[in-house]
Amino acid sequence: MNIQDIIRKKKHGEKLSRMEIEYFTEGFTRDEIPDYQISALLMAIWFSGMDEEETRNLTESFVNSGDVVDLSSIPGIKVDKHSTGGVGDKVSLIVIPVVASLGIPVAKLSGRGLGHTGGTIDKLEAIPGFSCDLSLEKFKESVRLIGAAIASQTGNLTPADKKFYALRDVTETVDSIPLIASSVMGKKIASGSDAIVLDVKTGEGAFMKTDEDAALLAEEMVKTGNSMGRRTVAVLTDMNEPLGRNIGNSLEIEEAVKVLKGDRIPGLWDVSLTVASLMVILGGLADNLKEAGKLVEESIDTGKAINKFREIIKNQGGDERVTDDPSIMGEALYKDTLYSEKSGYITAIKAMEIGMAAVHIGAGREKKGDNLDYTAGIELIKTVGEKVQAGESLAVLKHNRKDIAESLQDVLSAYVIEDNPPDKKDYIHRIIGL
Amino acid sequence: MNIQDIIRKKKHGEKLSRMEIEYFTEGFTRDEIPDYQISALLMAIWFSGMDEEETRNLTESFVNSGDVVDLSSIPGIKVDKHSTGGVGDKVSLIVIPVVASLGIPVAKLSGRGLGHTGGTIDKLEAIPGFSCDLSLEKFKESVRLIGAAIASQTGNLTPADKKFYALRDVTETVDSIPLIASSVMGKKIASGSDAIVLDVKTGEGAFMKTDEDAALLAEEMVKTGNSMGRRTVAVLTDMNEPLGRNIGNSLEIEEAVKVLKGDRIPGLWDVSLTVASLMVILGGLADNLKEAGKLVEESIDTGKAINKFREIIKNQGGDERVTDDPSIMGEALYKDTLYSEKSGYITAIKAMEIGMAAVHIGAGREKKGDNLDYTAGIELIKTVGEKVQAGESLAVLKHNRKDIAESLQDVLSAYVIEDNPPDKKDYIHRIIGL
Repeated sequence: MNIQDIIRKKKHGEKLSRMEIEYFTEGFTRDEIPDYQISALLMAIWFSGMDEEETRNLTESFVNSGDVVDLSSIPGIKVDKHSTGGVGDKVSLIVIPVVASLGIPVAKLSGRGLGHTGGTIDKLEAIPGFSCDLSLEKFKESVRLIGAAIASQTGNLTPADKKFYALRDVTETVDSIPLIASSVMGKKIASGSDAIVLDVKTGEGAFMKTDEDAALLAEEMVKTGNSMGRRTVAVLTDMNEPLGRNIGNSLEIEEAVKVLKGDRIPGLWDVSLTVASLMVILGGLADNLKEAGKLVEESIDTGKAINKFREIIKNQGGDERVTDDPSIMGEALYKDTLYSEKSGYITAIKAMEIGMAAVHIGAGREKKGDNLDYTAGIELIKTVGEKVQAGESLAVLKHNRKDIAESLQDVLSAYVIEDNPPDKKDYIHRIIGL
Repeated sequence: MNIQDIIRKKKHGEKLSRMEIEYFTEGFTRDEIPDYQISALLMAIWFSGMDEEETRNLTESFVNSGDVVDLSSIPGIKVDKHSTGGVGDKVSLIVIPVVASLGIPVAKLSGRGLGHTGGTIDKLEAIPGFSCDLSLEKFKESVRLIGAAIASQTGNLTPADKKFYALRDVTETVDSIPLIASSVMGKKIASGSDAIVLDVKTGEGAFMKTDEDAALLAEEMVKTGNSMGRRTVAVLTDMNEPLGRNIGNSLEIEEAVKVLKGDRIPGLWDVSLTVASLMVILGGLADNLKEAGKLVEESIDTGKAINKFREIIKNQGGDERVTDDPSIMGEALYKDTLYSEKSGYITAIKAMEIGMAAVHIGAGREKKGDNLDYTAGIELIKTVGEKVQAGESLAVLKHNRKDIAESLQDVLSAYVIEDNPPDKKDYIHRIIGL
């Protein structure tokens, strides 16, 4: 077997065998096949695609390249959750306590944010004392004892994926459905849960701009997960505007707490309810969305969810008083309010622009390793569907920078204000695999 | 400007600007852009193609990456010739003396053979004493004094192309029309001649298997050459079977001498006549193929051509007695004759198989740097269109190896023998750009 034959086959649109896929994954991971041949192969995959079986085999080769977390010592159906990344996406912060409070164990390994999308780990670390650096033992023990833990990806999980991702990132081969699907599913499967709910974002602020592409990706991931013995369901959710009103690490903790205390914030609530309900179904506590939804609402309305969040925070060294007093996370020095220049209805708030503006004022990373300002962020005073008068506040930018004139302008131009109100939003586009 | 934007544009089928093409050519040549990004770009070009203007700009960026030979001190229209490579292709050995004998200066920089195709330099070096290692001064002086010189590519011509070619070779991006066209034309233009005749091979033994592909490549090269101020003409010639009856370095010198002495060997003669005639037209000595052909035949029939070949050989240190006594090139120890197993008409001799068999018995290189056995080769006793009886000789394999059973079998299976005679061969498929 040799890498040039494999590149040639894929270049001509042929299917790669399981052995060929293992050959190039292992060869690249061990530095036996040079990056310049793998990048040519990745571009050939970008053009020619991969079918279901190839995607599954690639995923499996990623899983086999490193360790797999063994959660068998934890009783119950462990349910994981993954989002393809959005702006203001604090859904994990809401659904993990909810689902755990219902008795479904959640062992969540999570990543840091990059670019316009934030990371759950970063958000949690805005809480004083909170640590995601858990040993594998502490991680598993936490799930066993309190039902949930959130750790940064440690250990040697899917090292092949890490190498492939780093190369894809610099060769314009990130946006390939089989490559995204195998990267995501490889990590999820190596993380050891029994079932997986995928929140596949679609729209202006997502990697997948259209429902068609998002559905293709979702289907690929659902098939891959199921064929590897993990019950997998995906939900396509709207990411044209940011999710909720707060963008930025401590601001998102604050908003998640509001939802956990009963505030049904439009959009954020819809997505959280659906994702949590799907996790409840996969966890075996309900047969359908209606039944599951009732359990989710109950968990919140009885205070079980917010209490579970407090427990999780405390267990990982965080100051759980944050759930009653967000100011202990500190506050930004400056709060610049943005005023509307015209009157009308807000018909859109471009998520990507808001996400990038948040990065520019310190809430996110432009490149790996950048420091975060946990207190920085954007609060949307007005959101889609609402009426605004010229001169009224649209948004507040919270930051510790000297000059953010450009970001203010970016946020202003992210707002689309028109004479007529927009159609009613549909936050949940489609469920795949239920 | 950055390389990822360029890869992304090409990936989406967009046209690259002149500045973008210069940027990545220069960046890669100076090792400022890593090979893994260039190989992704090359694969994107393989899929998306390049238009005429992009191909021209890529060619120009190759030319600008190194030195350009200045032939202005040599009077007259300097005409160059290039073949895309075939089996038994000794056309350069014939047309250079012919054209030079008519007063058209030929300054030919040539390459060595690799794989199933031979190289003119290798063939000439089969002549005792012959050297293609000429300094630029000696090269130009030779053309000035005797009208022709053949040198191996020395100096710093198109270093960018060398880097790109080495990367294409290992990333399955060789067979791309714009990449082939810019590589060939970059070298030809840097070689300094005023006009170029391209012999584009088509068929089983050529890189381009179909006339359609060969025509696309030829048109691309003709347009590129003309747009860069070099009158360029291409001829599509048949490479389904080997050209002539001899394959192998000293054997091809022997056959070229036969043609220069008046032997109109079918196929080899047709291609040589056409290529030489096109060179005569571009050199300004004739207006059409008929007129030019007369001059070519005259050069041969009067002995001017073979005398010019003797002059060229002598000028480059070779023993010109080779033109009367080929045995001074030495002879192979073994001559294994292959006999036909059936009776019928030879309807095809697969060029690629013959070319590879010749390599395996020592006449060519499997990889760069392999040593050549100048005396090794294959003589086709029977060729396409001829009748054969079972038990009659088909071919002779000349070699110095112990066991060539496999090569004998390969040559045997290259012969296609059928009951009915084949249609009359058409060696010249098409002329483009005249």
